[in-house]
Amino acid sequence: MRILALSEVLPGTPVTNADLAEKFGLHAQWLDQMTGNRQRFFCREDSAPDVPRSTSDLATEAGRRVLDKSGWTPEMVEFLILTTASPDHLMPATVNLVADRLGINGVPTLQITSGCAGALQGLFAARALLESGHTRGLVIGADTCIKMWPSNRDAKSMKPAEMVNFAMFGDGAGAAACEAGTEGPGFKVEHLFLRGIGLGRKPAQVVKWFGAEGAAEGEAMGEEDYKAIERHVPEITQAILAELESKQGWPLDEVDHILLPQLNGVMTEKLRVGLNVTEEQAVSCVSVTGNNGNALPFVQMNRLAERLAEEGDGQPTRAFVANVESSKWIMAGMALVHG
Amino acid sequence: MRILALSEVLPGTPVTNADLAEKFGLHAQWLDQMTGNRQRFFCREDSAPDVPRSTSDLATEAGRRVLDKSGWTPEMVEFLILTTASPDHLMPATVNLVADRLGINGVPTLQITSGCAGALQGLFAARALLESGHTRGLVIGADTCIKMWPSNRDAKSMKPAEMVNFAMFGDGAGAAACEAGTEGPGFKVEHLFLRGIGLGRKPAQVVKWFGAEGAAEGEAMGEEDYKAIERHVPEITQAILAELESKQGWPLDEVDHILLPQLNGVMTEKLRVGLNVTEEQAVSCVSVTGNNGNALPFVQMNRLAERLAEEGDGQPTRAFVANVESSKWIMAGMALVHG
Repeated sequence: MRILALSEVLPGTPVTNADLAEKFGLHAQWLDQMTGNRQRFFCREDSAPDVPRSTSDLATEAGRRVLDKSGWTPEMVEFLILTTASPDHLMPATVNLVADRLGINGVPTLQITSGCAGALQGLFAARALLESGHTRGLVIGADTCIKMWPSNRDAKSMKPAEMVNFAMFGDGAGAAACEAGTEGPGFKVEHLFLRGIGLGRKPAQVVKWFGAEGAAEGEAMGEEDYKAIERHVPEITQAILAELESKQGWPLDEVDHILLPQLNGVMTEKLRVGLNVTEEQAVSCVSVTGNNGNALPFVQMNRLAERLAEEGDGQPTRAFVANVESSKWIMAGMALVHG
Repeated sequence: MRILALSEVLPGTPVTNADLAEKFGLHAQWLDQMTGNRQRFFCREDSAPDVPRSTSDLATEAGRRVLDKSGWTPEMVEFLILTTASPDHLMPATVNLVADRLGINGVPTLQITSGCAGALQGLFAARALLESGHTRGLVIGADTCIKMWPSNRDAKSMKPAEMVNFAMFGDGAGAAACEAGTEGPGFKVEHLFLRGIGLGRKPAQVVKWFGAEGAAEGEAMGEEDYKAIERHVPEITQAILAELESKQGWPLDEVDHILLPQLNGVMTEKLRVGLNVTEEQAVSCVSVTGNNGNALPFVQMNRLAERLAEEGDGQPTRAFVANVESSKWIMAGMALVHG
C-alpha cells in the first residue's frame, strides 16, 4: 500500500490559551505550563457557513482536499473508511453522510470507532482491502471533542483537572488517499501493525454517551486516568519503536522522521526527550492543533509530506509512526519510505 | 473464507406483547397486528447477575459461545471485530472491553458502527483480513436497543408510532468464527458484497447520541421514515437477490435457504411473499427475537446452522443472505454453501 496524498482540516480560527483563560477566569500561563498546548480549534454552532461545525463537515472537507491533491474523482474511490470517537449520530454511521457529500456511491463504507489509534486502525483496514482486490480508497479520521463538553456549563465552576482536559483537546480531521502496490509516488507503507493490549488493564480514558435524559446529577461524561497514561504511554511507545527498528533493520537514529503520540505538548516533549528522538526527527503538532484524536496522525503525516515537498531533494526518506491509545490500550506502529 | 461456527445470545426472558400492552395501556392484539413481532428480549439493570445487561455483556457471551462451538482457544483468535450501533461508551471502543473479557490479547481489534448491515460489514472486513494473511478471527454483532429509550418516560404518554417502534426492537448478540480458505467444515462464503447507496437519499433512520445535558425539550432520540423503508427495502432486496442469482448462476427457486431482511414480522412476511420466497426457503426470526440490529443476521445464520445440523443429511446446501440498512441506505449480499 502507498499513501498517495494527505490532508488536514482545522475548523475556524485558533482558540488560544488567552481565550480559554478569559473563559475560565484564570491565567493563560498556567494552561501553557500544564498542557504545553498553545491553541486548538473548535467546531462552533455559530460559525460562518463555510466553517465545519460537525464531524461530518470536518470529514467531508478532509475528503475533498485529499481527492483534490491525489487528482482522483469520487468515482475512482473504491472504498471509504472513517475513524472517529465522536460521530454525528449513533445511526446512520457518519461515514455514509460523508460518502453522499463527497459523491462517493456504490462502494463499501466502514466506520471504525476509535480514539488515538484510529488513524492506524483505518489504514490497517485499508491495507487489507487493498491486498484483497481493491485498488484505491480513502481513510478519513475526524473528531469533534467539543461535543463531550456540556455547553451550558459555567466555565468558571470547572475544576482545575477539567480545565486542563478541556485545554488539551480540539477538533479536526485528516485524510489519506491509499493505493494498492508499493511502486509509485507517496509514502510506501513497509510495515504496519495494530494490537489491542488491554488484557487485565483498566481503561485510562472513558467517554460516555447519554440518551435523551442526559447524565445523572454529578456524572461526568469523560474520565481520564492521567497517572496511568503518564506511566504506560512512554513504555508502550518505546516498544513500538523497538519493534519497528527490529522489523525494518533501521536503527532509530537513522530514521529521518518520527511521529510520536501527541497527548499534549508537555507529554509529547517528555516522550521525545525520554526516547532520544531529536527535535529534527520529531514531527509534532499537538501544541498548535490540540489533541484532535482520530485526525491527529493524519495531520502529522500531512505536515511531514508538506515538509518533504518543500525540501524537495528527492532523496528517499524513512519515517516511523507510533500510536498509543490509552482508552483500553492499543499499540500501533507503521514504517514509511518516501521518494 | 468459511464461517466455521455461529452463536446467538438473547438476554433474560422474552417480553411478550401482553407485557408491553400492560405497560402501554393498550391491547396486545394491536401490537401483534402492527409489528408481527410476538416477543423480544431486553437488557435490564435489575437482571440476575448472569443475564447480560449491556452490549459488552451480550457480545462477550456470544464470543464465548462461538469459541466453544468452534473449539478455539482465545489464543487462536487472530483478530476480533464487533459491529454495533449501541456501544457501552463512545470510548473505549466496546470491542476492546470484550477482548479483555474473552482473554483475546495482542491482536487487531476493530469496532464497526453500523445497523442492519453491520453483520455483513463485519464479515466483509473479516474476509479482507483473512485474504491478506490472517488465519482465524471472530466477528460479533450486538445491540442494546433499549438504551435508545428514556427509562423514566411514562410509557402511557407514548404516541402510537413510538409504541410500535418500541415493540419492533430488541436486544441481542450473535457471532461468527471465520477461517481462511474454502476447504473444510462450515459455511463457505462464495460471494459477499457491500455497497453504500445513499447518494442523494435522506436517512430513513436516525438515532442521536446526547451529551451530559441530554435532549432538548421534545427532541426525540430516534426518528424513522417508515414510508421510505416500506417503499425502498423491497426493491433493494430484490436487487441483492438478483445480483446473487446472476453471480452464482443459481436461480432463486433452487436456493435452499434465503435469509431476508428482518425489519419486523409484518414487513419481513410481505417481503417474502412479494419476492416469491417460499416459507420453506425463508429463515426468519424477527417475530420471536425482535429486531436486534447488528445481532440479527448472525441469529438467522445460527438458526440455519442448527436446522442443517438437525436435518443432517450432509447434502450440500445453498443459501443467500440479503441485508438492507435504511439508516443511510446500504445493500449487502452473501452467497453461502454448506456441506
